[in-house]
Amino acid sequence: MLNVNENYLKLKGSYLFSEIAKRVARYKESHPEANLVRLGIGDVTRPLTSSIIESLHASIEEMAREDTFKGYAPDLGYSFLREKIAKSVYARLGCKIHADEIFVSDGAKSDLGNLSEIFSEQCKVAITDPVYPVYVDSNVMAGRAGKFNEEIAQWDNLTYLPCTEDNNFVPQLPKDDIDIIYICSPNNPTGTALKLDELQTIVNYAIAHHSLIIFDAAYEAYISDKGIPHSIYECKDARACAIEVRSFSKNAGFTGLRLGYTVIPKELTDASGNSIHAVWARRHSTKYNGAPYLVQRAGETVLSSRGQDEVRNLVSYYMENAKVIRDGLQKCGYTVYGGKNAPYIWLKVPHGQTSWDFFDTLLVNAQVVGTPGLGFGPSGEGYLRLTAFSTHNNTQEALRRISVM
Amino acid sequence: MLNVNENYLKLKGSYLFSEIAKRVARYKESHPEANLVRLGIGDVTRPLTSSIIESLHASIEEMAREDTFKGYAPDLGYSFLREKIAKSVYARLGCKIHADEIFVSDGAKSDLGNLSEIFSEQCKVAITDPVYPVYVDSNVMAGRAGKFNEEIAQWDNLTYLPCTEDNNFVPQLPKDDIDIIYICSPNNPTGTALKLDELQTIVNYAIAHHSLIIFDAAYEAYISDKGIPHSIYECKDARACAIEVRSFSKNAGFTGLRLGYTVIPKELTDASGNSIHAVWARRHSTKYNGAPYLVQRAGETVLSSRGQDEVRNLVSYYMENAKVIRDGLQKCGYTVYGGKNAPYIWLKVPHGQTSWDFFDTLLVNAQVVGTPGLGFGPSGEGYLRLTAFSTHNNTQEALRRISVM
Repeated sequence: MLNVNENYLKLKGSYLFSEIAKRVARYKESHPEANLVRLGIGDVTRPLTSSIIESLHASIEEMAREDTFKGYAPDLGYSFLREKIAKSVYARLGCKIHADEIFVSDGAKSDLGNLSEIFSEQCKVAITDPVYPVYVDSNVMAGRAGKFNEEIAQWDNLTYLPCTEDNNFVPQLPKDDIDIIYICSPNNPTGTALKLDELQTIVNYAIAHHSLIIFDAAYEAYISDKGIPHSIYECKDARACAIEVRSFSKNAGFTGLRLGYTVIPKELTDASGNSIHAVWARRHSTKYNGAPYLVQRAGETVLSSRGQDEVRNLVSYYMENAKVIRDGLQKCGYTVYGGKNAPYIWLKVPHGQTSWDFFDTLLVNAQVVGTPGLGFGPSGEGYLRLTAFSTHNNTQEALRRISVM
Repeated sequence: MLNVNENYLKLKGSYLFSEIAKRVARYKESHPEANLVRLGIGDVTRPLTSSIIESLHASIEEMAREDTFKGYAPDLGYSFLREKIAKSVYARLGCKIHADEIFVSDGAKSDLGNLSEIFSEQCKVAITDPVYPVYVDSNVMAGRAGKFNEEIAQWDNLTYLPCTEDNNFVPQLPKDDIDIIYICSPNNPTGTALKLDELQTIVNYAIAHHSLIIFDAAYEAYISDKGIPHSIYECKDARACAIEVRSFSKNAGFTGLRLGYTVIPKELTDASGNSIHAVWARRHSTKYNGAPYLVQRAGETVLSSRGQDEVRNLVSYYMENAKVIRDGLQKCGYTVYGGKNAPYIWLKVPHGQTSWDFFDTLLVNAQVVGTPGLGFGPSGEGYLRLTAFSTHNNTQEALRRISVM
């Protein structure tokens, strides 16, 4: 019988951001005059920088000429980009990552989603809570989450590692054996950036328990404090237990261009000695056909010295917003976290309100769109995420409105 | 325990084209002076056309300005492109396909690979034989293929529908119930294009057996004869049983830009009444983040009247190659199929040679790279695929060499 994958049917309603989009659309319908400020979805607002624009125009001219036209990209990415990443990102951090351990893709979301496919359905998965919903949903799709327990708003077979005020948003490690742990630092949504010793503790746990860490480093460009690792491979032994996923979206503004990459060290194996690198390579070459040439060239440009200067400017721009949000909210008496080494501000909602209540409050009273913490997991209840990715004007306007609401 | 997905471990060696690439690399290493002509992988060689180049440059200028910058694309694609496809592709053919039944993606390969995920592991799958390897491999990954039987070179749980000289490469339908049938027309690799009544017979079977057809129409632009459908939705009742996957790669030369789309009619359900459209939408929004804005704009340009004129020129160019290959091979005494409504020529290899033998013969004696038929399935043994996607010069040179080898 033709049946859909039963695991997909277990998923709750729609993806968080689709739900927010629906609520916002409904509000706009009844308030067509409303001038909304969107601090919800983590999409960037600054245009692409000049070096990227020049690079894209130049690549297009290559695509226009027979002798320089590029068709299918190599399965795992152009070596010019993989070599550049190995050198400009990893060698600079003192991490030994070879170009052929880097898989170029159309973005971190695709990789983080698709990675869940290549592991056994029986693997035990731990996620921090609150968490980026893609980790959870893609594991539900892979049949690894069990049933959803409505009462506690948790999936039966997932292990939740609460990140709350009580533990400074640093996850406590599980007592039982876990096969795969998702870690994101600087964290989406809490804005917490793990210090080197905190991340090393997680790596040590993974080595001791033969676990795999899937490390999401999409926000590393926002780190300004010393002592906070930009890559998990700055930790001792991480090559033996960690995959790292990265993106050009939040540093260089590629949310609409689509480029990311995943690092899988060659010595990484499963319990039977199967190479994880080889299995991911097989997925990549079978179900994917490479990121566009011109986007990969643009990625190479991001990593040039001029590109890196421009990235620093973009990051500074957004971090000014983060400061405006933090300071503004604190002045209004709110308790806030994050926003220092991360573009996210994790706001504690006023006592007596749920996170969706406060989402609606902000929408109706200030025409500001945030992201309700509950959307990120049960420990996100009582919080709301605001992003620093808007423009200066809109960010200031949002805080002005919040201060008088 | 951390284990990889056992289904991935069942896969044979590497993906066909990776294996060819390896053999070619080995040959080039020992013959660095060899001037190879590649008629193997189906990659295009003509540069992007002028309307596409202009469109890309214009979109990049939009990305450079704050007021026109585009971040994340809508989950399922920009409506300007989906509306254009509904109108310029489907309405023109007399097919009722709504814009919101169209899912834009980074290419047909991704969609054809990923679609296998959203169905139950228990679904019975039929493939034509020979066949595009992605259909098979992605079903192996989904656990639907069973074990590989080395003796007959078939997967135990897949139903093979042989397409051979005896049946004019038109598949005979299975007697037992099948849940999912993959059909590609014009066909890769045999070059056969199904006539309307032949495709209607398959649709009728699907309706009678509650099967789903996954129809790969990537090569429809190459149809020149009347009476050959460009879309499966030209068949009666196809909306109730068929998904159609399309691409901008082979018509507009987007192999290096990446753009495709999948049509899932809203009334398409599984045996329990679950909407297949809704499940695919959930996958798309969870594990994918949209095709780049500038590529989607370029796709819209392909469908403009100027874009369509350019596509016709590209197709004519490649079809001249197809004629050169067909005529040249026939003059040398070879039996050939395809190459009339498709960019592929299906060459019968000389008696006594296997398809990999003849692959090596062509490589060594003519420095021409083809694709061995066995790579497409057991019924591909005894054939070799040549593509019309090279340049005129190289195609003529290849045929000159073959004629004297």
